Amino acid sequence: MIDINQQMAIIKRGAVEIISEEELVKKLETNKPLVIKLGADPTAPDLHLGHTVVLRKMRQFQDLGHSVVFLIGDFTALIGDPTGKSETRKPLTEDKIRENVETYKSQVCKILDMNKTIIDFNSRWLSPMNFGDVLKLASKYTVARMLERDDFLNRFKSQRPISIHEFMYPLMQGYDSVALKADVELGGTDQKFNLLVGRSLQKEHGQPSQVIITMPILEGLDGVNKMSKSLGNYVGINEEPKNMYGKIMSISDAMMFKYYELLTDVSFEEIAKMKSDCDSGAVNPKSVKMKLAHLITSMYHNAEAADHARVEFENVFAKKGVPDDAVTITFDRAKLKDGKVSMIGLISDLGFAESNSAAKRLIQQGGLKLNSEKCTDEYVEISKLNGEVVVQAGKRNFAKVKF
Amino acid sequence: MIDINQQMAIIKRGAVEIISEEELVKKLETNKPLVIKLGADPTAPDLHLGHTVVLRKMRQFQDLGHSVVFLIGDFTALIGDPTGKSETRKPLTEDKIRENVETYKSQVCKILDMNKTIIDFNSRWLSPMNFGDVLKLASKYTVARMLERDDFLNRFKSQRPISIHEFMYPLMQGYDSVALKADVELGGTDQKFNLLVGRSLQKEHGQPSQVIITMPILEGLDGVNKMSKSLGNYVGINEEPKNMYGKIMSISDAMMFKYYELLTDVSFEEIAKMKSDCDSGAVNPKSVKMKLAHLITSMYHNAEAADHARVEFENVFAKKGVPDDAVTITFDRAKLKDGKVSMIGLISDLGFAESNSAAKRLIQQGGLKLNSEKCTDEYVEISKLNGEVVVQAGKRNFAKVKF
Repeated sequence: MIDINQQMAIIKRGAVEIISEEELVKKLETNKPLVIKLGADPTAPDLHLGHTVVLRKMRQFQDLGHSVVFLIGDFTALIGDPTGKSETRKPLTEDKIRENVETYKSQVCKILDMNKTIIDFNSRWLSPMNFGDVLKLASKYTVARMLERDDFLNRFKSQRPISIHEFMYPLMQGYDSVALKADVELGGTDQKFNLLVGRSLQKEHGQPSQVIITMPILEGLDGVNKMSKSLGNYVGINEEPKNMYGKIMSISDAMMFKYYELLTDVSFEEIAKMKSDCDSGAVNPKSVKMKLAHLITSMYHNAEAADHARVEFENVFAKKGVPDDAVTITFDRAKLKDGKVSMIGLISDLGFAESNSAAKRLIQQGGLKLNSEKCTDEYVEISKLNGEVVVQAGKRNFAKVKF
Repeated sequence: MIDINQQMAIIKRGAVEIISEEELVKKLETNKPLVIKLGADPTAPDLHLGHTVVLRKMRQFQDLGHSVVFLIGDFTALIGDPTGKSETRKPLTEDKIRENVETYKSQVCKILDMNKTIIDFNSRWLSPMNFGDVLKLASKYTVARMLERDDFLNRFKSQRPISIHEFMYPLMQGYDSVALKADVELGGTDQKFNLLVGRSLQKEHGQPSQVIITMPILEGLDGVNKMSKSLGNYVGINEEPKNMYGKIMSISDAMMFKYYELLTDVSFEEIAKMKSDCDSGAVNPKSVKMKLAHLITSMYHNAEAADHARVEFENVFAKKGVPDDAVTITFDRAKLKDGKVSMIGLISDLGFAESNSAAKRLIQQGGLKLNSEKCTDEYVEISKLNGEVVVQAGKRNFAKVKF
């Protein structure tokens, strides 16, 4: 294993908080491989760059010789939402969970070395627990401390209901650390409370407390909100090279340095140099961003695919042209309403928005262009649309529509 | 079965609250025997008159032809206190629980018709529950509603810890009602919250909600505090006739009518008559109290024993004499301290106080008499105690001590 100072430098990169660095150094000083835990929900196996922030940290631990456990929280998925209120939390079958895990693996393998990754399932220790065991577990934590968790506190204060079983979830996640004898648990900053419960429960069970490392929540393409599929501001790690490249080119100049830090291995020195070159005007930020887009596209595909995506991008944006593969369709006049074309319907039909409300938002935010002219009307008279019109939704979606 | 109005009159006697009378009438109208639930903790099998208030209500239901379940809450006793903090909540063995239940039965049979009493154990349905079942149960209730329970709310407000597992106990008790399909649950007013949880859980499980009937908490001999063994203001149902009679004679005139109502079958009309006779001076309250003492002593022993207890009482109190069976002991001079007799030690040695602190309290409150003279000194010089001294502790404990 490499020198502890070097290990610490790698581990600290990008981390928001380490509780505590001192304890981590002590654990590293034992010179034994540490058990690094990362929990994952088996319900939504579609990873985007936001997820890679912690996964990449796992990979760094792996490269440092530590033992990485990718823990599937299958237990709650097997149970579903006991309130029965949430459509999305219907119990999954074991088969479905296994299938999801395979999908996970096929994505995670782009970041982790799967030969060195232990995949475990928390149903292994949570399923056999009886009522007495659960009472014992629940006795380890107080109501007041649980209510310190931000989302619980907010709901409690605003008199929105918290079901009592919800208090069990942090305890279950914490108990996972006991079962795994985790040395380190990783998570986003939004997981801090749960990670701390793990520390506390390990102590209650006479184990050394795990070190917790929180990583930042990556902002999405809009630079404001958390990257998430439902907000549409994400880059999936399985996305087409062209889309991946194009989406990354759409982020702000400020955001791109954060992406460099959290999503690539480019050294801090190099990042600082690029930043000062941009600030001084010695370098055009666009070229720095293109380098980032190329780098990330190469990571999840390969250099050739990234090269091709760059050419495409230059074609579309630099030359303001329409990409080679833009589809050509003929508008179906049966869809006319009072002689008008519904732009929401058109965008949805073209597959340029995931829902009608997303299409509506896109139009309201000025993301729709007809022959390069912005269109903010939800309905356009067919008489104003002559012959072939280039429909552009957002920066990267183009189609030729014959009216 | 007898007429519903008559049933309701019997059921309502002494009850503080019935939720709801309307529902109860509907249940009675089915003309089927109702399932009446009373929960009991298998840890303290030493019943006093305070316990008989609900037990007598159970007996009334039994006499009306309903089906009475005496439910032993053995499940938590088997587990013990999971915090491990309470000495009194160490797990009981199954043998010990069975033994306690036998002791219970031997006492409860003085009130209930044991041939018609179903004894059940909640471990029957709680033990087999797994983590998923517990989560489902916990999902049925919210944190905010649980915090409405007085003792939780007080502790929460004053920042005293509430362990999360404590929230499970009302749910367990409530689930017992689901498992038993209880029609009615009885309890003291202090149980109201838990009884209501049962109503709510039955509804969640698609059952008709049980009617809850709360009975008053009987004040002890002091007329102020809840009757309880630890406060020493109790009358055990297995106490000697002499003590039982004497203790009842020590209650206030006001309290005796409450005891008539809750502890005897004397009709309301008769009680009202006695009260007005006392108020008008037509009758001496003492004779009314002696009737009560005789009645209760007869219930838990027999008429002869009650007669004898009355004679004893008259001997001691009316004639201010020393009872026939007062022990005679010789003081052990080895126990002298600096030539003084410890009154605390003496009272304890005579078995007239359950602890040194109880003995001390008795002295401070003027309950110690030496040859009919009040003594408030904890130490008395032996030189002042000549020959045989009548030591009286409280109203009913006498001994002759040779110094």
